[in-house]
Amino acid sequence: MSQKAWAVIAGVGAGTGSSIARRFAKTYAVALLARKPSNFEPLVKEINDAGGHALGISADTSDAQSIKNAFEQLKKESGGAKVAAAVYNVGGGLVKKPFLELKEEELEGAWASNGRGGFLFAQAVLPLLLAQADASPDHPPTLIFTGATAALKASATFAAFAAGKFAVRALSQSLAREFGPKGVHVAHAIIDGLIDTEQTKGYDLGHAEAKISPDAIADAYWYLHTQPRTCFSNEIDLRPAREKW
Amino acid sequence: MSQKAWAVIAGVGAGTGSSIARRFAKTYAVALLARKPSNFEPLVKEINDAGGHALGISADTSDAQSIKNAFEQLKKESGGAKVAAAVYNVGGGLVKKPFLELKEEELEGAWASNGRGGFLFAQAVLPLLLAQADASPDHPPTLIFTGATAALKASATFAAFAAGKFAVRALSQSLAREFGPKGVHVAHAIIDGLIDTEQTKGYDLGHAEAKISPDAIADAYWYLHTQPRTCFSNEIDLRPAREKW
Amino acid sequence: MSQKAWAVIAGVGAGTGSSIARRFAKTYAVALLARKPSNFEPLVKEINDAGGHALGISADTSDAQSIKNAFEQLKKESGGAKVAAAVYNVGGGLVKKPFLELKEEELEGAWASNGRGGFLFAQAVLPLLLAQADASPDHPPTLIFTGATAALKASATFAAFAAGKFAVRALSQSLAREFGPKGVHVAHAIIDGLIDTEQTKGYDLGHAEAKISPDAIADAYWYLHTQPRTCFSNEIDLRPAREKW
Amino acid sequence: MSQKAWAVIAGVGAGTGSSIARRFAKTYAVALLARKPSNFEPLVKEINDAGGHALGISADTSDAQSIKNAFEQLKKESGGAKVAAAVYNVGGGLVKKPFLELKEEELEGAWASNGRGGFLFAQAVLPLLLAQADASPDHPPTLIFTGATAALKASATFAAFAAGKFAVRALSQSLAREFGPKGVHVAHAIIDGLIDTEQTKGYDLGHAEAKISPDAIADAYWYLHTQPRTCFSNEIDLRPAREKW
Repeated sequence: MSQKAWAVIAGVGAGTGSSIARRFAKTYAVALLARKPSNFEPLVKEINDAGGHALGISADTSDAQSIKNAFEQLKKESGGAKVAAAVYNVGGGLVKKPFLELKEEELEGAWASNGRGGFLFAQAVLPLLLAQADASPDHPPTLIFTGATAALKASATFAAFAAGKFAVRALSQSLAREFGPKGVHVAHAIIDGLIDTEQTKGYDLGHAEAKISPDAIADAYWYLHTQPRTCFSNEIDLRPAREKW
Repeated sequence: MSQKAWAVIAGVGAGTGSSIARRFAKTYAVALLARKPSNFEPLVKEINDAGGHALGISADTSDAQSIKNAFEQLKKESGGAKVAAAVYNVGGGLVKKPFLELKEEELEGAWASNGRGGFLFAQAVLPLLLAQADASPDHPPTLIFTGATAALKASATFAAFAAGKFAVRALSQSLAREFGPKGVHVAHAIIDGLIDTEQTKGYDLGHAEAKISPDAIADAYWYLHTQPRTCFSNEIDLRPAREKW
Repeated sequence: MSQKAWAVIAGVGAGTGSSIARRFAKTYAVALLARKPSNFEPLVKEINDAGGHALGISADTSDAQSIKNAFEQLKKESGGAKVAAAVYNVGGGLVKKPFLELKEEELEGAWASNGRGGFLFAQAVLPLLLAQADASPDHPPTLIFTGATAALKASATFAAFAAGKFAVRALSQSLAREFGPKGVHVAHAIIDGLIDTEQTKGYDLGHAEAKISPDAIADAYWYLHTQPRTCFSNEIDLRPAREKW
Repeated sequence: MSQKAWAVIAGVGAGTGSSIARRFAKTYAVALLARKPSNFEPLVKEINDAGGHALGISADTSDAQSIKNAFEQLKKESGGAKVAAAVYNVGGGLVKKPFLELKEEELEGAWASNGRGGFLFAQAVLPLLLAQADASPDHPPTLIFTGATAALKASATFAAFAAGKFAVRALSQSLAREFGPKGVHVAHAIIDGLIDTEQTKGYDLGHAEAKISPDAIADAYWYLHTQPRTCFSNEIDLRPAREKW
C-alpha cells in the first residue's frame, strides 16, 4: 500500500462523503469508513482504478470496539498510518417528529451517530494527527466535523436531531481549543441547506442551484486543510446562494 | 395531600434545587426528585414543617422506567397531578480532563444526566403542563432547564460536559418553539459562574459577591414562570456582577 | 419635588416607554424624555394625578447638547438627581428598503437614534448610577437598553436598522462588562415580535395574543432591576408564545 | 489599462490590505483605495512592475462624495469597470478607553470608518458586482468585509470599536441575504488575533506563530471568492492556532 499520508473519512455514502473522498484522494491515500461495505465499495474501486489509493473499512462509528478495529486495520494495511486529515461526516439521527411522539431510541440514535460517534472517532484519530503535527507546515493535520443548520438553531419537532448536532459542535469547539495549540486543526462546517445527492433528487426546490453541491463542500474542506497554523478557522457556514436563512 | 397545583423539580440537593423548591413552595405543592432520598429528605421536612406541601421522590432521571415510576407516584400521591411548573436542574457530567484521557463512560455520563435525562423528564412532564395550558393566564405552565456557561462555549478539556450542556440547550430551544404556541413556556437559564453552595464554600474567589446566589436563581425562575403568553423568554443569562465573561 | 430616587426613561410615547414609566413610577420618581412634549405630557399628568412623581423633559437623545441640557434640568428639578434606574427605549431607524435604495441619511438616522443616542444617554446617566452603587443592595442601579430581533439577525432589506440595533447590543455588552464589577447592572432586552400598541392596532396577526404586551415588557425590566449583584442578566429575549423564531 | 475584470480593495496599507491586493492581482486588475497615496503607491508600483495591473485611488470611504469620485475614476481609468470582487478592509476606530472617557468624536470615528464606510462602499460597488452576476459561475462576484473579534464580543473599554464592528457584521449579514439570491456573494471574516504586520512587530506574543499571517487571510478571501453559487459562506473565523478564544 501507499507510503503516502492518509485521509480518514467516516461516513461515506452516495453524497458528501464521496465528494470529500475524491477530493482528498488527489493528495492522500484515503480510508473510507461506512457501516455497510456496499456504501464504499464502488468508490474504493473508482479511486483505485483512477490511480489513487483507497481502502474501505466497515465500521460502526458509534461502537467503541468497531472503531478500534477499524483503526487497527488501517494501521496494519497502511504500514503505520500516517494520518494527515480526518473527516467525521456521519449522518443519521435526522428524525422530524412531534416531541411527544419521539421514542427514546430515536434520541439515542441521534446521540450515537453524532455525539458518541464523533467522540470515539476523534479519540481514535487525534493521536495519529498529533503525530503529524510537524510533518507539513502548509497542511497541518486536520479534523473536520460535518455539522448542520440544526447545530445552531433547534427547530420545533427536531429536538433529537438538534441535540445530536449541538453536541458535535460542542465537541469540535472544545477540541479546536485544546488541540490547536498542539498543531492540529479542528473545524466544524455548518451545512445549511439540502445537499444535491441521489437521495435528494426527488426534491424540486424550484431552481437549478437551490441545493448545495457536495463537490463544493469537499473543496471547502480541502481549503480548511490548507490553512496554516497562523490562520485556522473553526467554523464555516456553507449554503446555496438562494437559501433562506 | 394538597389540591394545589404542583411544581416538579428534578435535581434537588444542597444548592440551587433547594432554593428553587423553597421559592415555588410559596405557591405550589412541590415534588422533589433526586437519586438519593438523603438529598431531599431534610428539605421535604423543612417545607412541610413550615406549612407548605412537599413530596420527595427518589428517581434517576436518566432512566426511563425510573422517571415513569416517579410520575406515577406523583399522580397517585397528588390525586391527579396538576402540574403548573417543572424544573430540570440535574447536574452531573462535569468532568474536566484532557480529551484523550476522557473515558467513554464519562461522555455517556454527561449525556445521560443532561441530554437523555432532560428528554425523559420533558416527555413525562409536558403532557401534564399541556393539560394546564388554560388554567392560569398569569402563570402559564412552565418548563425550565438549568444550563451553564458550557452550553454556549465549549472550552478546552470540557468536551464531554459541553456536549451534554449544548444538547440541553438544543432541547429547550426546540421545545420552546413547539410548545410555546400550545401555551407552555419553555426556558433555559445559563448559569455563568460558581454557585454559592455548601460544596463551593471552599473556593475563595476573593470577593463576597463573586458567587451566584442560589436564591436569586430561584427568583429568576419564578419570574420566568410569571411571564404571560404575550411575553415569554426562552433564554436568560445569570452571573455575578464581578464575573469575567 | 420628590426626595425619592429617580428612574430616567428615554423614548416615551404611546407604547412600551409608557408602560415602563408606569411600572417604575410605582417605586421611583420618573423622568420621561421624548423629543416632542406631546409624547410625554399626558403620561406625566396621569402619573402625577395618581399620586406619583413624573417630570417630562424634551430632549433629542442623538444630540449631545440636548442630552446635556436634559440631565441638567433633571438635576435642578430633582434637587440632585439620585438615579436608581435608566432605560434607553428610543425607537427610530426602522426602515425596510432594498439596500440600493437606502439613503445615507436613513443609515445615519438609524445610527443616530440607536448607536449615538444610546452612547450619549449612557455617558450622561452612568455617573449618576455609579453614585448609587451602594445605595440599595436589593435593587442595584440599572441601565437597560431596548433591543430588537434585528440586534441578533440582520435580515435582507433591513441593513440600516440592523446596523443600529447591533451597535446598541455591542454597547450594552461592553458596558455590562465594564460597569458590572462597579455595581451597576447593564442589560439588553431583545424584543422579538410586534408590540401591542396604538400604532400596531391595525396589524391583525390572527390571534389575540400574537403581539407582545408592553406592560409585560415593563415587568421584565422591573424584574431585571431587582436582580442582586450576585445574579445579573445581561440579555433576555421577549416574544409572544405564538411567535415564529 | 487592462481589459481584465477588477478587484477593488478599500483599506490598503502595510498589512492585510496589501496581502489581499497581491493575491487578487494574480487574476484581476486591482484598484487600491486608501486615504493617503503613500499607503498604496509602493504597492501599485510593485504590482505593476511584476506584470500585474494596479491602480491607486485616494479616497476617504467614510465620505460619500469621496467614494463617488473614486468609483468614477475607476470607471474612467478601467474603461468601464467590470468588477469581480471587492473587499472592505478599512481599519480605524480601534480605541480602548474607559467608557466615561470616550469622546463623542471617537465613537463617531469608529462608526464612520466601519458602519458608514462599509455602507457607502457597498452601495457604490454592488451595482458593479450585480452586473457581473452571470459572468463567471466559478467565481461569482464577491464582496468581503474584514471583521474582528469585536464583531462578536464587545469587551469592556471597547464600546466604540465594538459598536462599529457589530454594525459591519449586521451589514454583511443583511447584504448576504439580499444579494445572494441575485448571484452576488457577500461574506464577513472575523479576524481573531493580532495580524503579523510592520505595525505589530513590536508585540512579542512569545511564539513565532502567535500572530495571523496576512497572506493567509488573503488566501481565505480568495477561497471565499472561488465558492460557487451552490455553496456560499457568509462567515469565517480566522485565528492563530495558539490563540486563546
